[in-house]
Amino acid sequence: MDRLSLQNPVFATYAIAASLMILKAVSMSWLTVARMLQANGGFRSPEDIRKTPLNPTPDPKQLEPNERVERIRRIHLNDLENLPFFLVAGLLFVLTDPSLQLARWLLYGYVISRLLHFAAYFTAQTHDMRATLWTVGSVILIFMSCRTLLAAFGF
Amino acid sequence: MDRLSLQNPVFATYAIAASLMILKAVSMSWLTVARMLQANGGFRSPEDIRKTPLNPTPDPKQLEPNERVERIRRIHLNDLENLPFFLVAGLLFVLTDPSLQLARWLLYGYVISRLLHFAAYFTAQTHDMRATLWTVGSVILIFMSCRTLLAAFGF
Amino acid sequence: MDRLSLQNPVFATYAIAASLMILKAVSMSWLTVARMLQANGGFRSPEDIRKTPLNPTPDPKQLEPNERVERIRRIHLNDLENLPFFLVAGLLFVLTDPSLQLARWLLYGYVISRLLHFAAYFTAQTHDMRATLWTVGSVILIFMSCRTLLAAFGF
Repeated sequence: MDRLSLQNPVFATYAIAASLMILKAVSMSWLTVARMLQANGGFRSPEDIRKTPLNPTPDPKQLEPNERVERIRRIHLNDLENLPFFLVAGLLFVLTDPSLQLARWLLYGYVISRLLHFAAYFTAQTHDMRATLWTVGSVILIFMSCRTLLAAFGF
Repeated sequence: MDRLSLQNPVFATYAIAASLMILKAVSMSWLTVARMLQANGGFRSPEDIRKTPLNPTPDPKQLEPNERVERIRRIHLNDLENLPFFLVAGLLFVLTDPSLQLARWLLYGYVISRLLHFAAYFTAQTHDMRATLWTVGSVILIFMSCRTLLAAFGF
Repeated sequence: MDRLSLQNPVFATYAIAASLMILKAVSMSWLTVARMLQANGGFRSPEDIRKTPLNPTPDPKQLEPNERVERIRRIHLNDLENLPFFLVAGLLFVLTDPSLQLARWLLYGYVISRLLHFAAYFTAQTHDMRATLWTVGSVILIFMSCRTLLAAFGF
């Protein structure tokens, strides 16, 4: 059977996990926009304090960092450090023909760890909790990449 | 037919869009280099103000942020927040067997929206215009990921 | 033969190069953690100076930038600007059916250039050396993407 067909339940598992993670990352952009609108600030470019229909009363203070916006930017950067690598590592892992059960545990486990990491970061839980949740995802990513490496070397 | 063959016009469409976006992102690195050379500054690492053949008269001011360089870095960061997710979302979308017409509209539409976004950001157009162009690309990305999700669940 | 099978030596070459680059990027996160622990600082979020089992004696100075931590963050950002695009460009290049010899030179050459770039950045070599090593990888990336573009257009 074609490994990259959605008829293949292992690949379908990957496609679901990958799409959810892509939508998660894109949501961070929209959340940044939402918080910039709420705060009416947290902008970054000099031209953002030009008078426009969406910014009728510009103010240089709009370019100052806003902690509620910066928090989302930090979460977003954490996504950029993790999700693109998960997306490719997961695809390569699927091509090593893992069992459906293992693929589900790892791929959905990763998704859940990242959603919980988001919840912990968003609500400013302790660094310890955030680090623990990040570690779960990172270990899954390392495991999948090592598995692919071994398979590529014929083991 | 093999879905991931360049003989498949839907996949060829993706390969063209993806390659253009990769070259676009890589160009941002080169543009940053070009502007650092023009400005003879905008560097980031302490060792960058060591005397070398390429930097014969170093000066601590070379480490200060330079707005012309920072603008390209902001455009680049925006690419990092968007393009890697487009690259995977587009590939997964191709694997859902969309019509060639739909694939062309979405994939080339995304490319065009990002090139216009670059033009608007590069020339410091208003935030409103930049946001509108970014939104077009983001909505295409969300649509492709939702389509993949539905297809993976059998719809 | 299935192009995306690990039985295909060109794809296996890609899988090895990609897995090594993913593990390299993930290592930057762990190295950041290691240096934050060593420095007992370089944190970024206000909640990181709350008293916890892992941070028994918090201090506002822990939120100040720490150069040893910031260096790893800069290396990491450079990875984010390069590796996700390599991962997709390499996969598309494999689908153009290159010779095994060319694939090995380009894919392993990229990996080696990035490992040397890391070594140069980590040990604070001159900007000239770092730029040279970065350029090697960037040119390989551009070559692979241009090759894919041409192949997609039927050349």
